[in-house]
Amino acid sequence: MADQYDVLAIGNAIVDVIASHPDSFLESNGIPKGTMRLISAEEASALYAKMGPGREISGGSAANTAAGVATLGGRAAFVGRVSNDQLGKVFAHDIRAAGVDYRTPAAEGGPPTGQCLIVVSPDAQRTMSTYLGSCQEVDETDVDAEMVKAARLIYFEGYLWDPPAPIRAIRKAKAIARETGRKVALTLSDVFCVEGHREDFREMMQSGAVDIVFANENEAKSLFQTDSVEAAVEGLAALVPLAVLTRSEKGAIVVNGVGREEVPVTPAARVLDTTGAGDLFAAGFLTGYAQGRGLRDCAVMGTIAAAEIIEHYGARPEADLQARVKAVLG
Amino acid sequence: MADQYDVLAIGNAIVDVIASHPDSFLESNGIPKGTMRLISAEEASALYAKMGPGREISGGSAANTAAGVATLGGRAAFVGRVSNDQLGKVFAHDIRAAGVDYRTPAAEGGPPTGQCLIVVSPDAQRTMSTYLGSCQEVDETDVDAEMVKAARLIYFEGYLWDPPAPIRAIRKAKAIARETGRKVALTLSDVFCVEGHREDFREMMQSGAVDIVFANENEAKSLFQTDSVEAAVEGLAALVPLAVLTRSEKGAIVVNGVGREEVPVTPAARVLDTTGAGDLFAAGFLTGYAQGRGLRDCAVMGTIAAAEIIEHYGARPEADLQARVKAVLG
Repeated sequence: MADQYDVLAIGNAIVDVIASHPDSFLESNGIPKGTMRLISAEEASALYAKMGPGREISGGSAANTAAGVATLGGRAAFVGRVSNDQLGKVFAHDIRAAGVDYRTPAAEGGPPTGQCLIVVSPDAQRTMSTYLGSCQEVDETDVDAEMVKAARLIYFEGYLWDPPAPIRAIRKAKAIARETGRKVALTLSDVFCVEGHREDFREMMQSGAVDIVFANENEAKSLFQTDSVEAAVEGLAALVPLAVLTRSEKGAIVVNGVGREEVPVTPAARVLDTTGAGDLFAAGFLTGYAQGRGLRDCAVMGTIAAAEIIEHYGARPEADLQARVKAVLG
Repeated sequence: MADQYDVLAIGNAIVDVIASHPDSFLESNGIPKGTMRLISAEEASALYAKMGPGREISGGSAANTAAGVATLGGRAAFVGRVSNDQLGKVFAHDIRAAGVDYRTPAAEGGPPTGQCLIVVSPDAQRTMSTYLGSCQEVDETDVDAEMVKAARLIYFEGYLWDPPAPIRAIRKAKAIARETGRKVALTLSDVFCVEGHREDFREMMQSGAVDIVFANENEAKSLFQTDSVEAAVEGLAALVPLAVLTRSEKGAIVVNGVGREEVPVTPAARVLDTTGAGDLFAAGFLTGYAQGRGLRDCAVMGTIAAAEIIEHYGARPEADLQARVKAVLG
């Protein structure tokens, strides 16, 4: 069967609400800087009322990655549930307009489309409070076996590991991918995901169900409950065929059975909002991977896409990423 | 009575949907570059489907001006109608979060909140297609006589001059302002507004109902059906006590009964999206005016606020405008 997609991403379908605040705003609201946390509709309403003027830009971790893959010239599909409301229409429009095949039907009558209230600090750090809304209603019926079979790579976000329905969706996609020899990639997403699902994540990797893992330093260290980045890298390398460790301004480490590559960051023209840096790193890496590039070039593509996303507000690419890759890698 | 507000603005309550496109997009959709036009719900839906990934940022001309006045340290109120939907909540949140007193009740059950589909070209020019939605339902009952009496200056946008209900709202506010000696300011908004309501606008000025007029070169030339900027400036000076002509990169001309000031632009760090430049010029000018500054300094404040708004996407200020004014004017 011909590959129709390079990447099929499954994740939360979210619209970001982005406001800028000094660190004192986070402190006075008791929100730890740089984290992601889940909040209820009531908490979202109360926090939004305190936030400054916002910018609404489609988000969602795996959705950002899918949009990035498409912007980089790859063929991407996305599975995730919005509600049939104005923000759901915004999400669906934006991901399709980015070139991603998005078919998940909108939920009717349930909670509204998921929103992530993002506070951007003066140092460009982002702090996220997420109300999942209709995201939690994605389930196994949304995973079309033909789409999974038509994708070189299935990509999941760790953020999905909480409500039961999305986990059923992932299980189904993983099973189809395994049967048909498709690669499976996973991002650990956030330390809180690792803390909540450490055994699940490790077991999934140990069982051979995951081919590629993306993690940042803190997530990897949490997975192995170690303070040593090296121990975490070795742990990942022992568990999965390909591990990609992102290290913010220190670049990235890629390890597979054969060896190890370390790449520095691609400098950004300015650093305004770090939201989506990891998502776009994954987009660049996976696009290069689907193009059959070497691991070093895959990682370089990741740093190029990550550099672009932190130059502006929002986690969806604004610049011509293909041109930027071409300028560096030819 | 103590002045509670420096500026009470009345206008369309709109959320902007901003996407970037090359000029070929406008050409292939038959939309004249740089214009504003009104479109139906069906046209909005069809155009949105063709547009690229968007950014949703609260807008509306007079609303942007009100947000600018508040950001500059002035006391502002806004009157304009949203619907009780997600985008209406976004609009209400953003204008209040900017520090503007906004009390107009949301419409229930009618058309959705107004949206402006903005195509930003590579040269930063903006082209606007507006679906008014619930904006048209603002009426005289939304104009609170006590708020008008408590404002030094009432500011209207020419965009309101189309559906009958908003015109009744303006008439009521103008009448109260005249009775109580409040100043009335008007922006001509767009050439299409002037073409549609030339006689209304001129008659309003001739009758002495308007104290300050804001216009760009094309609007002023259209008002007097002349090709000469000088003729337009003289025409405005003869009709109103204070006329402010904005001239894009050529700066601004201010004329009153006594004399004339010309100010150059304040250079922008970069020019990304010119949406809202006129709105923010008015915000800077009116804030200076309310502070009792000289006309030249009022115009300089206008250029400072306009320079900030064109440095980023969206027509609501992101930077500390008070600090920027202080750096120039002390």
